[in-house]
Amino acid sequence: MKLLRFLDQQGRICLGEPAGPRLARPLISAPGDPAVFAPHPVTIQTYLPPVEPPNIFAIGRNYREHVAETGARLPEAPLIFEKPTTALTGHETDIMLPEAAPNEVDFEAELAIVIGRIARRVPREKALDHVFGYTCANDVSARDCQRLDRQWTRAKGFDAFCPLGPWLVTADELQPDHLAIRSRLNGQLMQESSTSRMIFSCADLISYLSHQFTLLPNTVILTGTPEGVGFARRPPVFLRAGDRIEVEIEGIGTLSNVVRGSGAITA
Amino acid sequence: MKLLRFLDQQGRICLGEPAGPRLARPLISAPGDPAVFAPHPVTIQTYLPPVEPPNIFAIGRNYREHVAETGARLPEAPLIFEKPTTALTGHETDIMLPEAAPNEVDFEAELAIVIGRIARRVPREKALDHVFGYTCANDVSARDCQRLDRQWTRAKGFDAFCPLGPWLVTADELQPDHLAIRSRLNGQLMQESSTSRMIFSCADLISYLSHQFTLLPNTVILTGTPEGVGFARRPPVFLRAGDRIEVEIEGIGTLSNVVRGSGAITA
Repeated sequence: MKLLRFLDQQGRICLGEPAGPRLARPLISAPGDPAVFAPHPVTIQTYLPPVEPPNIFAIGRNYREHVAETGARLPEAPLIFEKPTTALTGHETDIMLPEAAPNEVDFEAELAIVIGRIARRVPREKALDHVFGYTCANDVSARDCQRLDRQWTRAKGFDAFCPLGPWLVTADELQPDHLAIRSRLNGQLMQESSTSRMIFSCADLISYLSHQFTLLPNTVILTGTPEGVGFARRPPVFLRAGDRIEVEIEGIGTLSNVVRGSGAITA
Repeated sequence: MKLLRFLDQQGRICLGEPAGPRLARPLISAPGDPAVFAPHPVTIQTYLPPVEPPNIFAIGRNYREHVAETGARLPEAPLIFEKPTTALTGHETDIMLPEAAPNEVDFEAELAIVIGRIARRVPREKALDHVFGYTCANDVSARDCQRLDRQWTRAKGFDAFCPLGPWLVTADELQPDHLAIRSRLNGQLMQESSTSRMIFSCADLISYLSHQFTLLPNTVILTGTPEGVGFARRPPVFLRAGDRIEVEIEGIGTLSNVVRGSGAITA
């Protein structure tokens, strides 16, 4: 099942299933009942992130070819960082170039896991039983801050630096280990890989994270990005006001966002 | 006003004001009305963290003498990291030594700011207007993970690695810039300083953070720790099962927690 969260034209928060561009059939069954969607679609005013997570964990350097392009070493264990919940935004919303660091804002296409059932010290074989679904994420990153700061919280955490969507696909309908993943900048292919190229699989990551932290329902895990990001290109490519950046994952769909300037001078 | 969150003996979540050891007078006025507390105290079954934050930001290396004891350089801007919300715990609860890293768990006494009014690009002169109150925090840290991992999320983020409490003191009753701050391990003084020794003041931190992120109501900011932490001592001192660790801040009170083993072998 595809499940999306959106504001309808009256500004109400709704759950529904996608029914075409900016159209959704709202969920009308009660929690616990089998999902039943209204027969007639309504217009989506604003796409919301498909979940409201208590925490957003993210993994750095999890695709072999991306590790190579950054010049880093292969990690021995998952490299964990966090993104603040204020970084969340949805499909077809704007990514703002932050006033504090507008010049080296980069894109990272990532498969995002949404936890459904509390996970604490879960073995790898049972890890996927704890997944509610999957969605597309863009781990937007200000590379100048990432180089300068000791910790990545600021570089990865500006407002709207975590677009998620357009919807989630429930775990019963998606096997996460062999999905094509791509990003496109203004229609041009920038990243193209497969989730099979991850160093640590989704099951590995859930199991490992659950041995460090309690993963509450709705926790989001960004699983790392493949090669082709902007800063590793010659010359480097960074996001500019007016750009459209898309993340496409096989079996899910395409998350699309437009970049907006902060009003600061972008050299 | 001192404001605490707790479970009463029926397990209900209550707000109240402290009225003695494990006693509180519950808040009986409605939101928006002036605070009125019940005349008779009730027994506190469990102290909860005084707030439920959407994000917990923390600052590294913010006391000059602590920077010196770690051998690091003075920061030019606040060093920001995050702690997951699952790290929260309250007063008089247990800090568990994590199974993944039980051997070098350290304490850090810190003044915590609780945001009351949304803050976005706030100038320093207006920053304290956005504070709801202040409380004591312990920025518990697994030093082995902190050395090994590139990012501090794991080292600072294990479950129960962010005790907060015992209550908050509202901003109208506390000026945060000249408060004595101490930690005690099994009654022995370990840290003793003043918030006047911070490199970046509370107003500096709120203003700076609000230029990077939107600070939503209930956001918690840990403002850094003074010198005297365990790992910088010769020989180093780490938390062991059965230890009692306390954080005391002038004008607020004393946050006290007992350390519990994870069942793993602690060398």
